[in-house]
Amino acid sequence: MIIGIGIDVVALDRFEGLMNRQPTFLDRVLTSREQQHSDGTRRNIASLAGRFAAKEAVAKSLGAPAGLRWHDCEVLTDISGKPRLEISGSVSDFARSLQIIRWHISLTHDGGHAIAYVIAES
Amino acid sequence: MIIGIGIDVVALDRFEGLMNRQPTFLDRVLTSREQQHSDGTRRNIASLAGRFAAKEAVAKSLGAPAGLRWHDCEVLTDISGKPRLEISGSVSDFARSLQIIRWHISLTHDGGHAIAYVIAES
Amino acid sequence: MIIGIGIDVVALDRFEGLMNRQPTFLDRVLTSREQQHSDGTRRNIASLAGRFAAKEAVAKSLGAPAGLRWHDCEVLTDISGKPRLEISGSVSDFARSLQIIRWHISLTHDGGHAIAYVIAES
Repeated sequence: MIIGIGIDVVALDRFEGLMNRQPTFLDRVLTSREQQHSDGTRRNIASLAGRFAAKEAVAKSLGAPAGLRWHDCEVLTDISGKPRLEISGSVSDFARSLQIIRWHISLTHDGGHAIAYVIAES
Repeated sequence: MIIGIGIDVVALDRFEGLMNRQPTFLDRVLTSREQQHSDGTRRNIASLAGRFAAKEAVAKSLGAPAGLRWHDCEVLTDISGKPRLEISGSVSDFARSLQIIRWHISLTHDGGHAIAYVIAES
Repeated sequence: MIIGIGIDVVALDRFEGLMNRQPTFLDRVLTSREQQHSDGTRRNIASLAGRFAAKEAVAKSLGAPAGLRWHDCEVLTDISGKPRLEISGSVSDFARSLQIIRWHISLTHDGGHAIAYVIAES
């Protein structure tokens, strides 16, 4: 059964502006392993913004409760390139309280926008 | 079981143009309680356009049948900020005929676009 | 049960650029019946780009495996205007291996972007 869904769009120029104006922004919202490819190189703006959008989409799918911590929801990439979620702490607690056991996530970007879309199933 | 899904994107400048050129447009597509926040202030363009996109997404999830009335699908906001649908009349009739009993909806906007995404479940 | 989901956004100007620079691009990614309306007229850029986005979304919902052929997933339109998928060959084989039996698809475009969103169910 579907418990919640979420979509989020992020304008890349606005995201890059946040990164430039707030030097702590990126580390606050993304963990270090989210910021890098598996070979250690830094992800580009579209990829970083997509991960940020995914976290917003996850929060919406949970009903956007207060108390969620950015680092408690990580958007990682399988060897095949498929994105997947790894949740812990505050996000895991809310998900458990809603009996969510499976997450589906998809990311896309083009034309200056990154979009994430999430479904949470029990 | 999923009966239908829908997505809709609305360019905010096009939406604002429609509002300016057609003084009756907004009242035709959105009810008065959709146009306002709970404190009675008018929603901004992105929020109004998101509600319009949600209705288009709902229509798509029903197979875009003829005869749907704009005011028979209202996009309201819970105290938590979470959007929810309230359907009646023509939309309720079509939903019942498809055995839809649950709706999931999510809204987002940034970079001049509002996007709505809907899932209808039996 | 949901097996996979996919979303894809395509910037129309980038898509049109691909069409202009690579004369074989359109025939490579879309079948002839996808390129035309039922009356034989050519679809516009937004409609063509939406079909391309839908194929990308389908590939993501399957986990983006290697070996998918563009023509093995066709995005057709019912008489009502509702989009539907017709899959064959490589796409059908992957779908069967994941026990997918139903597809849900929705398309939208505005403001220079086409977006497709897909859910694959078992």
